[in-house]
Amino acid sequence: MFEYQITVRGYELDSYGHVNHAVYLNYMEQARWEIIREAGLLDQLIREGKKLVVIKADVRYINEIKLFDKVIIHTKVKKEAPYLVFYHKLFNQNGNTRVARAVIKAILLDEQKKPLDIPDEMVNLIAHKQEGNG
Amino acid sequence: MFEYQITVRGYELDSYGHVNHAVYLNYMEQARWEIIREAGLLDQLIREGKKLVVIKADVRYINEIKLFDKVIIHTKVKKEAPYLVFYHKLFNQNGNTRVARAVIKAILLDEQKKPLDIPDEMVNLIAHKQEGNG
Amino acid sequence: MFEYQITVRGYELDSYGHVNHAVYLNYMEQARWEIIREAGLLDQLIREGKKLVVIKADVRYINEIKLFDKVIIHTKVKKEAPYLVFYHKLFNQNGNTRVARAVIKAILLDEQKKPLDIPDEMVNLIAHKQEGNG
Amino acid sequence: MFEYQITVRGYELDSYGHVNHAVYLNYMEQARWEIIREAGLLDQLIREGKKLVVIKADVRYINEIKLFDKVIIHTKVKKEAPYLVFYHKLFNQNGNTRVARAVIKAILLDEQKKPLDIPDEMVNLIAHKQEGNG
Repeated sequence: MFEYQITVRGYELDSYGHVNHAVYLNYMEQARWEIIREAGLLDQLIREGKKLVVIKADVRYINEIKLFDKVIIHTKVKKEAPYLVFYHKLFNQNGNTRVARAVIKAILLDEQKKPLDIPDEMVNLIAHKQEGNG
Repeated sequence: MFEYQITVRGYELDSYGHVNHAVYLNYMEQARWEIIREAGLLDQLIREGKKLVVIKADVRYINEIKLFDKVIIHTKVKKEAPYLVFYHKLFNQNGNTRVARAVIKAILLDEQKKPLDIPDEMVNLIAHKQEGNG
Repeated sequence: MFEYQITVRGYELDSYGHVNHAVYLNYMEQARWEIIREAGLLDQLIREGKKLVVIKADVRYINEIKLFDKVIIHTKVKKEAPYLVFYHKLFNQNGNTRVARAVIKAILLDEQKKPLDIPDEMVNLIAHKQEGNG
Repeated sequence: MFEYQITVRGYELDSYGHVNHAVYLNYMEQARWEIIREAGLLDQLIREGKKLVVIKADVRYINEIKLFDKVIIHTKVKKEAPYLVFYHKLFNQNGNTRVARAVIKAILLDEQKKPLDIPDEMVNLIAHKQEGNG
């Protein structure tokens, strides 16, 4: 499992005074960038012009979050061909409440935007890191 | 059915050179604000402190969109108690391709953030406008 | 002079219930993309990997703007070597009030991010369009 | 002086592959929220419906920043009636380069959006914290 923490910023609140629902997707995207980085894949993807592109996002919003809340994002990653699938769970450290959960399916595109199989090497590097995290 | 058009703005592109997946949620949110406005409900909701809050978002991304693309958002609204459900379909006028579709479930909260039944009056005002649009 | 219109979207409001000050920069950026497009320069810049990059932004905020306000952006463009300078004035059509004014200085970078002189051809194409607009 | 650190997130990059110029304003806004919080003023402002609103933003962009860069925001605050003025300097910890500097002038509004004098108590609480930070 991967863990990433984000502190809610003032400009992420909308006119309802809480974090806008689209911003949850921003938070989860950043957690995924961090996973790619931790697995040592970031430079390679950029160098080869390969892109992980979101194809499907199913998000369940459970509790609102507000300025300075500390949001913990737990993520598990699985290959479910042809997708790399990210299972996110968001918690609010202030109160230890559940905030949201989501399933995000991504595909890998090459520089010409042709879909690629998710390479075993990528899956293994992520899995290795994921297991190391416990 | 409701129809709303949005032109893609330069700052909505991410480092992949296309509209970031979270921005699709922004576009659809704006289409919903417009529906609320067209149905004559906007002032009332603001005055009474009632809020439509997204509880579930299921988005399927079909094609990327880029700077100056004209995105048409078709929306159908149904009451499926306790939710007000928005069925969005996004098209790109440049090429007439499908861009995305989504199901967004919202609940209505009062000023103290207690869930309310979706009032029949709200459903009727939206339905009336929806049918009028053909 | 160039003129661009933007309608305020719901998700652009912050917790103060008005458009966040950073979003004014988004609006003005989009007005500049449109000028580049109208002058017929967009495809060329992208093809050659040249980038107009903001170096200085001086913004004076005059009135708040809110959901569904129609914002008119008037822009004059001048070459003041080594900068291309954009003079923006924003008005709210709802009430005909002044919203903001700004001076944005940009430089032109080549694909290796080396600064370039602003080419006379670029200035002429913009000036031609600008005068045509009256 | 106040110090705040932000790590650049993937979705904050624009199609140029670097942080969009408007996002610098987001970063600085968040640094100001943190100052308000550290000075113990956040709850009071929210409770009394008072708002610090940006009236003038002068930003000088010095170097681009990219994914995972760690940005340090140094801020000094001064009362220059009728404004509360924030002097921001942004550095990139990766390479220790200067990123931007800005002067942001804000006024204080009451719940009816009437301008208020910046209260001495507010200035003292901020100054006390500022000096404590060295």
